[in-house]
Amino acid sequence: MIVPDVTLELAQWVVQLRPQDIPDDVRREGVRTFVNWLGCAVGGANHETVDRAMAAVTQFCGPQQATVIGRPERLDVLHAALLNGISSHVLDYDDTHLKTIIHPAGPVASAALAVAEQRSISGARVLDAMIVGIEVECRIGNSIYPDHYDRGWHITGTAGVFGAAAATARLLGLDQQRTAWALGLAATQSAGIREMFGTMTKSFHPGRAAQNGAMAAYLAESGFDSSERGIEALRGFANIYSNKQDYNEILGDLGRRWEAALNSYKPFACGIVIHPTIDGCIQLRNELGVSGDEIESVALRTHPLVLELTGKKTPKTGLESKFSVYHAASVALLKGDGSPEAFTDSLATDAEVIALRDRVSAEPGEGIGEDQVVISLRLRDGRVVEKRIEHAIGSVKRPLSNSELDAKFMRQSSLVIGEEKAGALLNAAWQVAEAGIVGDILGHSAPA
Amino acid sequence: MIVPDVTLELAQWVVQLRPQDIPDDVRREGVRTFVNWLGCAVGGANHETVDRAMAAVTQFCGPQQATVIGRPERLDVLHAALLNGISSHVLDYDDTHLKTIIHPAGPVASAALAVAEQRSISGARVLDAMIVGIEVECRIGNSIYPDHYDRGWHITGTAGVFGAAAATARLLGLDQQRTAWALGLAATQSAGIREMFGTMTKSFHPGRAAQNGAMAAYLAESGFDSSERGIEALRGFANIYSNKQDYNEILGDLGRRWEAALNSYKPFACGIVIHPTIDGCIQLRNELGVSGDEIESVALRTHPLVLELTGKKTPKTGLESKFSVYHAASVALLKGDGSPEAFTDSLATDAEVIALRDRVSAEPGEGIGEDQVVISLRLRDGRVVEKRIEHAIGSVKRPLSNSELDAKFMRQSSLVIGEEKAGALLNAAWQVAEAGIVGDILGHSAPA
Repeated sequence: MIVPDVTLELAQWVVQLRPQDIPDDVRREGVRTFVNWLGCAVGGANHETVDRAMAAVTQFCGPQQATVIGRPERLDVLHAALLNGISSHVLDYDDTHLKTIIHPAGPVASAALAVAEQRSISGARVLDAMIVGIEVECRIGNSIYPDHYDRGWHITGTAGVFGAAAATARLLGLDQQRTAWALGLAATQSAGIREMFGTMTKSFHPGRAAQNGAMAAYLAESGFDSSERGIEALRGFANIYSNKQDYNEILGDLGRRWEAALNSYKPFACGIVIHPTIDGCIQLRNELGVSGDEIESVALRTHPLVLELTGKKTPKTGLESKFSVYHAASVALLKGDGSPEAFTDSLATDAEVIALRDRVSAEPGEGIGEDQVVISLRLRDGRVVEKRIEHAIGSVKRPLSNSELDAKFMRQSSLVIGEEKAGALLNAAWQVAEAGIVGDILGHSAPA
Repeated sequence: MIVPDVTLELAQWVVQLRPQDIPDDVRREGVRTFVNWLGCAVGGANHETVDRAMAAVTQFCGPQQATVIGRPERLDVLHAALLNGISSHVLDYDDTHLKTIIHPAGPVASAALAVAEQRSISGARVLDAMIVGIEVECRIGNSIYPDHYDRGWHITGTAGVFGAAAATARLLGLDQQRTAWALGLAATQSAGIREMFGTMTKSFHPGRAAQNGAMAAYLAESGFDSSERGIEALRGFANIYSNKQDYNEILGDLGRRWEAALNSYKPFACGIVIHPTIDGCIQLRNELGVSGDEIESVALRTHPLVLELTGKKTPKTGLESKFSVYHAASVALLKGDGSPEAFTDSLATDAEVIALRDRVSAEPGEGIGEDQVVISLRLRDGRVVEKRIEHAIGSVKRPLSNSELDAKFMRQSSLVIGEEKAGALLNAAWQVAEAGIVGDILGHSAPA
C-alpha cells in the first residue's frame, strides 16, 4: 500500500487555507461552537477540579499573558490553556463530534484563545484557526475511530492535541515544514486513557492537549525539529494508536467536506451516550407527574456503549455520577434535570436519588442507536409505560437552537460571574468575528 | 485472571521504603547513575536542540527555582526538568537498562533534582528517590517489554513518566493514595513514539517525561484526584499500551530484586545496539593500522534490532547519524571514535566518512545477541579479517569502571564548562549522598 504524505499535506492545508475558503455555514457553526465552549469554561471555572489544578500550577507560572476564563487569575499562555481546557470540560457539558465522540472545542479553543491573547490577534483570525484546528482534530479522529477508542484511548485528548497544534501553528504563522513539525510534536505527546473517566483527570485531558498542542507549535516556531511523517510513519501515530488507519478520512475532500460543521452541543451535563435516557425520563416525568415513590422500577434498553461507558452502579461523587446511567435516570425522573446541578456530590449521595437509582436496570437493546433508548416504567399501581426516544435532544437530528444555547450559557455562567457579566460576555461571544483583539472579549469573563 | 492492585501496591512501596532498605550495592550503582547522568546533562547542554527548546520556553517560564545544568539560566521546576531531560539524552550517551532499552536517569533524575532544588532537599534523599523512581520505571518497562517497544513506543518516554512521578511523589512526601493518583496522572500522560528517532524530538521524550511526571505528583499533592488503578485497569496503561502485561515484573520481589542495580553506561554516543560494532571497529583499527583507502568493504552480521533501529543509509545530520550503523562503523574505523564528536553534522557530511560508509553492509546474523557482532573486513590487498565481539564494552558483562566514568564525564563536560569546573562538579557528584542541600552540587555546573 502506498501511504500518502499525510502530515505534510495536512500541514499545507493548515497553512494555505484562506479565510474566504471557509463556507458561511461552517463559520456560523464555528461561532456556535465558540459560544458554547466559552459558556462551559465559565460554568466550570469554580469547580473544585479547577481550584486544585490552580493550586498546583501557581508556583510554576510565568508572565500573566492570558485569561483564566471565569476566574480572577491571569497565567502564562501554556498554563491558561491547561486551566481553560479543564474548566470547559469538567462539567461534561461541552460539545461533541458525534462520529468520534470527540469533544472538539476544549483542546483547540483553549489553546487558540490563550495564544491569541499573547500575540494580540483578532477575533476573526482566532475563529478561523479554531475551525481549522477542529477540522484537523476530527479528521484525525475519523481516521482511527472506532478501534482507537475501543482500545481505551480518550480520543478528546489523543486527537485534541493535533487540533491545538494546528490552530496554534496557524496563529503563529508557521510555514508548512514547521507546521508538520508541530503535528509531529503533537503526535509524540498524544495521550489520555479512559480509565480516568469519573475522576478529575478526565478533564485534565483536553486541558493538557491544549497545552501540549500549543507547546508543540511554539517549539516548532523556534526551529525544534521533528519527523515530517508523525501521523503516517510505520512507527508513527496512526499505526501505534490504532489498528485502523483510513488516511482518506484525513486528506479526502479537504476544504469541501467539513467535520467542523457537524459539531453538536450538550443539553445535559454528562456523557453523551446517556442523553437519550435523560431526555426520555424528563419527558415521562412531565407527562405522568408521578413521584419517585410511585415508580416500582425503570428498565432501559440502550446502545451497548452506554453500559461500557456509564455503567457505574454506585457513584459516590458528582464526577462519578456523570458516568452512571442509573443516577442520571433517577435524577431526571425525580427532578426533571440534566444540568450541572443534577450531578453534584450532594445528589450523588442523596437518599431519595439512591433509592430510585437502585431500581433502575439497563441492558443493551437490539438495533438501538447511540442517540436512542427505550424506557419501560413500571408503576406501583400496575401500569407499565414505555417511551422510545428516536433522536435525543442535542443530537445532529435535534440540534440546540441559538436561543437554547443562550439559555444554557446564561444558566451556567450566571452562577459563576453573575447575570450581568454573563449577558455581556454572551453578547461579545456571538460577535467574536468582529473583535479587533480577541482578548477584549475575555475581559468580560472575570468574576465581579 | 485476578489482577492485583498494582498501582496501589506499588505506591505503598514508594511511600514506605526506608533508606536502610536500599542495599549498599544498589546505592553504589545509584551514585554511578547520578554521576553519569550529570556528565551527560553538562555535555549536551549547549547542543542546538537545547538552545531551541530554551528559545521556545523562555517566554512562559515562572520563578527561577532550579538549575539548567551546564547553562547560565535558572528556570521554574517544570521547565528545568524538561531542559535537563533533553540535554542529558540529546547526545545518546546516557545510561541503559539493557533488558528494556530504557534510558532510566533522564526522566527520573531530571525531575528529582529540580524538585529537590525547589524544596531544599538533601542529596541523600534525592539519591534514594532517584533509585526508587528508576526501580518503578524499569519494573513497569519489564512488565510490557518487548511487545510495547515493538509496537513503536519509545519506552524511555512511556515508562519514564512513571519513574519521574514516583520519585517526585517520594520527595514531596505524598501518602499512598496521592502517590497512586500521581501514578494515574503519569499513566494518562505516557507518550513518545519511535518515529522521532533521529530528530530533536527524541530527546524531548525524557525531558517531557520528567516534566509530566513531576507535574503528576504536584497535582496529586494539591488533591487533584485520579484513578487508583491507572496501571492495571481494563482501560488502563498496561492493557492499552501493550499486548503483554506481566504484573509480577512490577510487584514481584519488590525491595529484593533491584532493576536499578542493572543500569549500564554508554561508552559511545549513539543507540546501544550499535555499540558492539563500534567496539569491534575501533579494535580492528588499532590492531591493523589500516587507512580508509585500504578497506575494500565491511560486512556486519548483527542482532536484528540493529537494522530496524539504526538502518539509516544516508544520514544527513549529526542526530540522524546516531541511527546509522554504517556511519558509526565508518567513523570508528577512520577515527577510532564513538564519542559525541563522532556524530556531528560535519562528520555526517564528510566525504571520507561517506565514502567508507557506503562500503559497509549489514545483515542480521543467526544467534547474534544484542551485545554481539561479527565484523568481516575485506582489504584491498586481498586479506579478509574477521572480528567477533562477544560482549560489547559498556554491557552488563563489561561495565564501565568508575575511572572510565570519570574520563567520560571529564571529556564531555570540559568542552562545555571548562576542565576546572568539570573536575569540581565530578567530585561533588560522587559525594551526592553527603550534600546537605542537593542544589549546592549543581552550583558547580554553570559555565564560567
